[in-house]
Amino acid sequence: MKVLAIGSHPDDIEIGCGGALLKHRAEGDEVHTIVLTGGGRGGENHDNQLTTTRCAEAEAGADILGVTIECWDYHDGEIPETVALIDRIEAVVREMNPDRVYIPYGNDTHQDHRVTSNVAKSACRKVKQILEYEEPSSYNSFNATYWIDITPFIDKKLEAIRAHVSQGHKEILKAKSIEGLNLYRGYQSHVEYAEGFATFRFLES
Amino acid sequence: MKVLAIGSHPDDIEIGCGGALLKHRAEGDEVHTIVLTGGGRGGENHDNQLTTTRCAEAEAGADILGVTIECWDYHDGEIPETVALIDRIEAVVREMNPDRVYIPYGNDTHQDHRVTSNVAKSACRKVKQILEYEEPSSYNSFNATYWIDITPFIDKKLEAIRAHVSQGHKEILKAKSIEGLNLYRGYQSHVEYAEGFATFRFLES
Amino acid sequence: MKVLAIGSHPDDIEIGCGGALLKHRAEGDEVHTIVLTGGGRGGENHDNQLTTTRCAEAEAGADILGVTIECWDYHDGEIPETVALIDRIEAVVREMNPDRVYIPYGNDTHQDHRVTSNVAKSACRKVKQILEYEEPSSYNSFNATYWIDITPFIDKKLEAIRAHVSQGHKEILKAKSIEGLNLYRGYQSHVEYAEGFATFRFLES
Amino acid sequence: MKVLAIGSHPDDIEIGCGGALLKHRAEGDEVHTIVLTGGGRGGENHDNQLTTTRCAEAEAGADILGVTIECWDYHDGEIPETVALIDRIEAVVREMNPDRVYIPYGNDTHQDHRVTSNVAKSACRKVKQILEYEEPSSYNSFNATYWIDITPFIDKKLEAIRAHVSQGHKEILKAKSIEGLNLYRGYQSHVEYAEGFATFRFLES
Amino acid sequence: MKVLAIGSHPDDIEIGCGGALLKHRAEGDEVHTIVLTGGGRGGENHDNQLTTTRCAEAEAGADILGVTIECWDYHDGEIPETVALIDRIEAVVREMNPDRVYIPYGNDTHQDHRVTSNVAKSACRKVKQILEYEEPSSYNSFNATYWIDITPFIDKKLEAIRAHVSQGHKEILKAKSIEGLNLYRGYQSHVEYAEGFATFRFLES
Amino acid sequence: MKVLAIGSHPDDIEIGCGGALLKHRAEGDEVHTIVLTGGGRGGENHDNQLTTTRCAEAEAGADILGVTIECWDYHDGEIPETVALIDRIEAVVREMNPDRVYIPYGNDTHQDHRVTSNVAKSACRKVKQILEYEEPSSYNSFNATYWIDITPFIDKKLEAIRAHVSQGHKEILKAKSIEGLNLYRGYQSHVEYAEGFATFRFLES
Repeated sequence: MKVLAIGSHPDDIEIGCGGALLKHRAEGDEVHTIVLTGGGRGGENHDNQLTTTRCAEAEAGADILGVTIECWDYHDGEIPETVALIDRIEAVVREMNPDRVYIPYGNDTHQDHRVTSNVAKSACRKVKQILEYEEPSSYNSFNATYWIDITPFIDKKLEAIRAHVSQGHKEILKAKSIEGLNLYRGYQSHVEYAEGFATFRFLES
Repeated sequence: MKVLAIGSHPDDIEIGCGGALLKHRAEGDEVHTIVLTGGGRGGENHDNQLTTTRCAEAEAGADILGVTIECWDYHDGEIPETVALIDRIEAVVREMNPDRVYIPYGNDTHQDHRVTSNVAKSACRKVKQILEYEEPSSYNSFNATYWIDITPFIDKKLEAIRAHVSQGHKEILKAKSIEGLNLYRGYQSHVEYAEGFATFRFLES
Repeated sequence: MKVLAIGSHPDDIEIGCGGALLKHRAEGDEVHTIVLTGGGRGGENHDNQLTTTRCAEAEAGADILGVTIECWDYHDGEIPETVALIDRIEAVVREMNPDRVYIPYGNDTHQDHRVTSNVAKSACRKVKQILEYEEPSSYNSFNATYWIDITPFIDKKLEAIRAHVSQGHKEILKAKSIEGLNLYRGYQSHVEYAEGFATFRFLES
Repeated sequence: MKVLAIGSHPDDIEIGCGGALLKHRAEGDEVHTIVLTGGGRGGENHDNQLTTTRCAEAEAGADILGVTIECWDYHDGEIPETVALIDRIEAVVREMNPDRVYIPYGNDTHQDHRVTSNVAKSACRKVKQILEYEEPSSYNSFNATYWIDITPFIDKKLEAIRAHVSQGHKEILKAKSIEGLNLYRGYQSHVEYAEGFATFRFLES
Repeated sequence: MKVLAIGSHPDDIEIGCGGALLKHRAEGDEVHTIVLTGGGRGGENHDNQLTTTRCAEAEAGADILGVTIECWDYHDGEIPETVALIDRIEAVVREMNPDRVYIPYGNDTHQDHRVTSNVAKSACRKVKQILEYEEPSSYNSFNATYWIDITPFIDKKLEAIRAHVSQGHKEILKAKSIEGLNLYRGYQSHVEYAEGFATFRFLES
Repeated sequence: MKVLAIGSHPDDIEIGCGGALLKHRAEGDEVHTIVLTGGGRGGENHDNQLTTTRCAEAEAGADILGVTIECWDYHDGEIPETVALIDRIEAVVREMNPDRVYIPYGNDTHQDHRVTSNVAKSACRKVKQILEYEEPSSYNSFNATYWIDITPFIDKKLEAIRAHVSQGHKEILKAKSIEGLNLYRGYQSHVEYAEGFATFRFLES
């Protein structure tokens, strides 16, 4: 199986589907990831130094997950809903031909997540499985319909989140809260730890 | 894989997930079905003769699908949302231990479908995969998130629907309209014929 | 009655409301259509030759429907959510003063359809009847609340879809799948063939 | 045109679609109404005296609207979601064969309104036009998609609401608040007074 | 402030709003709770011994929360959506006159929770603040709009959940998963631990 | 308590939350308002004269409400969903540190309202209370979950709406329809006049 995961910022993928990606790797699946921004918010104040640091951390996180990664150069808070970005993602999709794609939640409260979700859906319109992952900003309309048991991978997932050290205390709190969420999703699905997803499109063939 | 499908009336299962069940059988899965009413609507005018006829047709339909079937004795239009019915379904679930269950859509415009969906969800709360199938009465809120490619099985599915001969012209029209729907769902998912489902709960482990 | 239909790409109108427009024409209604892009996707690779071809096909489709048409020059995948486009549509609305407008579904999975729907709603805020039509990309949230019986017009509708010959095999499949959908919508509404719409706004006066 | 309106309690119809019914009558349409309970809430404390009074007021309200009425004998708060009630409504529908039916909102916060809506939908599954009307208890999910201009009929509608005199001050406040709502719905639809409806099913043929 | 919390089963209140109730008590508010069933599921097999045990545990849980409690005698899985139950709750509401009521989520996947929510809404139609709490079975449509900071009370809340010792290992897992959820809700709202609620109705006066 | 209200056009704030702001002022709260456009629609035809007039009226309206105001210079119909605008709002939020923010409804049918709501949510992601207000264009998905009793303030609220005199007859009609809406929302919440809000996020701490 070939898997692609797309995130807006350096830690979104680890948070939303880090456990699932570790499970894919443990099963021998090929996993590639794309991070659209370096996260050094924003506008004219775009902080190149921070962007470089956070991209390095994203690579460290990807190493822990055992996946390949490419960091793109969009600006934090300004991911554009354009055909150019759709085309760029589509080129990766055409070359890799993934069976499954993980993307941010389409109705997230964070604008970058919504835009990333929308352009990814356009670029992946022929991919058979598209799952939207959950983040703290997904409140107000996210509902899980698909759970993945990540019990054997929770520690490594948390380690990958903590690789984002430049975010300091914030990231440590985040890791703790995500562990809490995954425990809750696990209880809902009768396993120990689980990640929850919204099934955007899943073709069984 | 072990599969259970539950329907309110004699032809609901064929219509909503007949193609999926044929695919499961072709892959060697064990498939059992339960039909809650004999369909001889309703109340004091409950028509025992018609009920007997329709149950026989349901068995003929099940034969074509290659699945086992049991016809229960609830009255058409009066399927009760009771713990007794939940317990009865749960007994089957406990004995069979299915990996996946197909049920009617929970917000269908037909009351029997809503009740069947609700009691099935209660009875199957530990089943890993629950998919809600689509019927003509599912308008107003059904949205497909899960597609199953049924291209090799469309002819046999239609034959199973047409086994409900006592329904006469109505069933022939229904078969034609369901073929149309499956063609449309196929186009949406880049195959020839597909059935669409709402993912109520799916645990990947 | 005066009717306006707006589509993002050359075949959207035929697919979503071709039968309804044929019915309007049969009843003597005046019907005008606007197609926002030539469909020659996209960006720097905008294909002028293909755009010209597809516009000619759109005109052929309009001829079959018996409606007037204007093809605008926006780029496929890049319809802009701007006040300029709203103003341009509003100018047509002001001159024609339509009683009813058909537009794409506002929460479609295709970005161009969403944008077209949004700008049309802004431009038509004083039109009494606005119906959103359904396309294969409308899965995930579309629900029909308004059906139009198109039984006498299904053949001509399919002919109009097939006028988009440059799209080749894709368009033939699409016509077949839309026939299937219209058969299903017909069954739901107790007629032979029907188109389904979401009622965005309907004033009965 | 033949029109049927169904209400749970003695004043629901006047409040939700009184203006629309007056408009139908002004256009020469035949209008019949059914009120399911006498409104003398509830259980063992069912108040027969109050029920008789409120039914008489419902008849007075119907007279003002110029429509025929039948008051049924279900208990306030206890309208049963049974096949017997569906059959009873269906008998009226079969005899009258209405073109349009007005019913309470299906997801209202009041249980009687939800049940009435559900059984009416089952009984009217072949009726071409079903509109759900709005009441003060419809908050939390009602959204108007269909407006009817009731400007010429607002005074008579309010008079019909005020015919429910046994409800005293409550009914006077209600009439005032409904006038406010209809004014607001009017502003939304560019007329003076309007009633708002949710389009459950509308077939244009 | 006077607060009422209503739960279907012996541990629902602790899970969904135990932290909020502790906060109310710490602020000197009067808090009363009603548990509708003893939880000894179900039907003919109603287990009186277990019911007695679980009610005693509910009282122990209430003691830890510092709130008064009454355990009613409905059967697990069979809470009836009747006017009699509405009247019984309404009698408590009339006597206590609460400013705020906590109830289960109205679209929960557990039937008892849905029924409890519905009857409570009917009984509390004049209460100014109604908040729906979240439980593991609330997936598929619950969304938080109201958060309560329970940081100082998390330990006592977990102790109250663990008072349900007859549920054994299940309850210990549940406590752990709820701690996880509250940590996640805390992160979302920039505090350490929080409970999330859906705002059914809130009047600020 | 410190309160911020954000509106797209000169009269949005008065309409949606004018009563609530008057109540805050009566309770001694600090209230600041931001109006993003001067309302002189639009594009190349941006009417500077009208913009100046409408800003003056907005200031008059703010005077009546007793709140401070700043009018920004975005163009009507063209409020941009950009990080620059988010930053500009965030600067105000950082300086003022409001406890509560009132914003337009996020799924309004008016594009400017949707954009304003989105950028405000991004800028206010650490504000504890965010309420979305209702306007005539909010039909199709707005549902009130939070009501504020504005009975003592209705006259002054209407006076503030009527301060927008350049809008002429339109504004007088609007004031009348909003009075109607507030009367209806009052009836729903058992007070005389109320404003209805959707609770986007509310943290009780």
